[in-house]
Amino acid sequence: MPSRVEPDLGERIELPGGEFRMGTDDAEGFPDDAEGPIRSVRLDPFAISATAVTNDQFARFIRATGHRTEAETFGWSFVFAGFLPAALRKISSRPEGTPWWCAVDGATWDHPEGPGSELGGRGNHPVVHVSWNDAVAYCDWAGGRLPTEAEWEYAARGGLDQARYPWGDDLTPGGKHLCNIWQGRFPIRNEAEDGYRGTAPVRSFPDNGYGLYEVVGNVWEWTADRWGTDHPIRADGTPEHNPTGPETGPQRVMRGGSYLCHKSYCNRYRVAARSRNDPNSGGGNNGFRIAF
Amino acid sequence: MPSRVEPDLGERIELPGGEFRMGTDDAEGFPDDAEGPIRSVRLDPFAISATAVTNDQFARFIRATGHRTEAETFGWSFVFAGFLPAALRKISSRPEGTPWWCAVDGATWDHPEGPGSELGGRGNHPVVHVSWNDAVAYCDWAGGRLPTEAEWEYAARGGLDQARYPWGDDLTPGGKHLCNIWQGRFPIRNEAEDGYRGTAPVRSFPDNGYGLYEVVGNVWEWTADRWGTDHPIRADGTPEHNPTGPETGPQRVMRGGSYLCHKSYCNRYRVAARSRNDPNSGGGNNGFRIAF
Ligand SMILES: [Ca+2]
Ligand SMILES: [Ca+2]
Repeated sequence: MPSRVEPDLGERIELPGGEFRMGTDDAEGFPDDAEGPIRSVRLDPFAISATAVTNDQFARFIRATGHRTEAETFGWSFVFAGFLPAALRKISSRPEGTPWWCAVDGATWDHPEGPGSELGGRGNHPVVHVSWNDAVAYCDWAGGRLPTEAEWEYAARGGLDQARYPWGDDLTPGGKHLCNIWQGRFPIRNEAEDGYRGTAPVRSFPDNGYGLYEVVGNVWEWTADRWGTDHPIRADGTPEHNPTGPETGPQRVMRGGSYLCHKSYCNRYRVAARSRNDPNSGGGNNGFRIAF
Repeated sequence: MPSRVEPDLGERIELPGGEFRMGTDDAEGFPDDAEGPIRSVRLDPFAISATAVTNDQFARFIRATGHRTEAETFGWSFVFAGFLPAALRKISSRPEGTPWWCAVDGATWDHPEGPGSELGGRGNHPVVHVSWNDAVAYCDWAGGRLPTEAEWEYAARGGLDQARYPWGDDLTPGGKHLCNIWQGRFPIRNEAEDGYRGTAPVRSFPDNGYGLYEVVGNVWEWTADRWGTDHPIRADGTPEHNPTGPETGPQRVMRGGSYLCHKSYCNRYRVAARSRNDPNSGGGNNGFRIAF
């Protein structure tokens, strides 16, 4: 019998919780995303992984459990067109409105650009092509859980009050790139001035005040919460997460933006920015980190 | 032997061509879409169908040729999530950035919301789930061709110079809805004040000055041209369509916007607005009209 494969939890950051100001009224924000209003939120102590879950970490989960990801069940996943050879691009369907996504047969976490692509050299990159359900299954196995949206934002802010980014208000202080997003004209030309066209290895950029790496840029990170257009706060200041009001559905909140974010199209690499997707969906820029 | 199925070409509008001002510098325009600059373009006489190709018209093509659409080859197509029962939504993958698109197994032109959905009562609606290649195959069979982008815009303008819409500059003159787009908060609630949540039958709205119906809204319409970021004009004033410059690729231009367009998200139901997709891609809001 093979020896039991244990989770590799990586570095775990213990955070005291307490009260912080969540959300933004940033003029660069998206009103339809309900980034605001700014509200005081109180959190219990919790822990969160310093980095997104990596391919090596995820591989242990697959070896231990035989988990079949939803991308494998569907038989395909969305890959950024610019990563694909022309022949593969040509046989992949694309959605109206975001035609840089190719639906690629056989794209999975361990074949991120479809059949023929491999993880070689990317063991320390964040795992991608994982759905919310895949992420929850990983966390269950590893003895953790997904962070709530409030926990994610509190951790991402790194102790700064109402800063736009995890390090302050200036995207590139002193001209230095502090996150992995898109430079150049999206989606035509990625200048990759930050050093990366796709995912970057974890710990490629400086950590924030709490010791978390790449909270913005690199990959979108799933949170536990349902997407809702309001943010109910209980009388004691704690967020009522997973709200199920009339305008909430099965979609889950993602945070942090990804290597595809560009100011012109998806200025969502700010700590208060939000996006969402269905719990069974993933893609080449979707990952997560684990909380406890 | 079955009798030969002939094309039903519908009403054909003969246009004299000549010079018109193409493009816009509208403040509501999208600079990255290269809607401008405004340039004088000269066109030879041509003809174009008064309406988008309908399901009944497309059905004749399928009966006559046995053509297999690309949605059938892929085995799925993109359907607006709001049209689907929860059970089907839950098992359909969605792209990041446009999570209102569900990739639905078995969605095709004649099963627009997937298995179980039928065209019943929609024979006079524009055909959807057709790729550019499908549209070209239809036009070849019917003895026509796709309009060039310049022809499309000239026809859509209906003789008005530099108006924002086919009827003028006011979206809803006298409070009247003149095209089928989205009213309400996209993508959560479609108030359908114009009478339609999805496709409308052709000729539901008034025609423009040249006798064309639903050039904006209802369904995106494929054109012959490749997507390019510039608009080369020859010395004689005719557009050099299908440019193949360094920033052009295989994608084709679509025009007119669809029932999913909303000012907040996709203000592309203006006559100068542009979008594009790969020639093999389609979806539940993609159609075409035929030129000669
Ligand atoms: Ca980058
Ligand atoms: Ca409508």
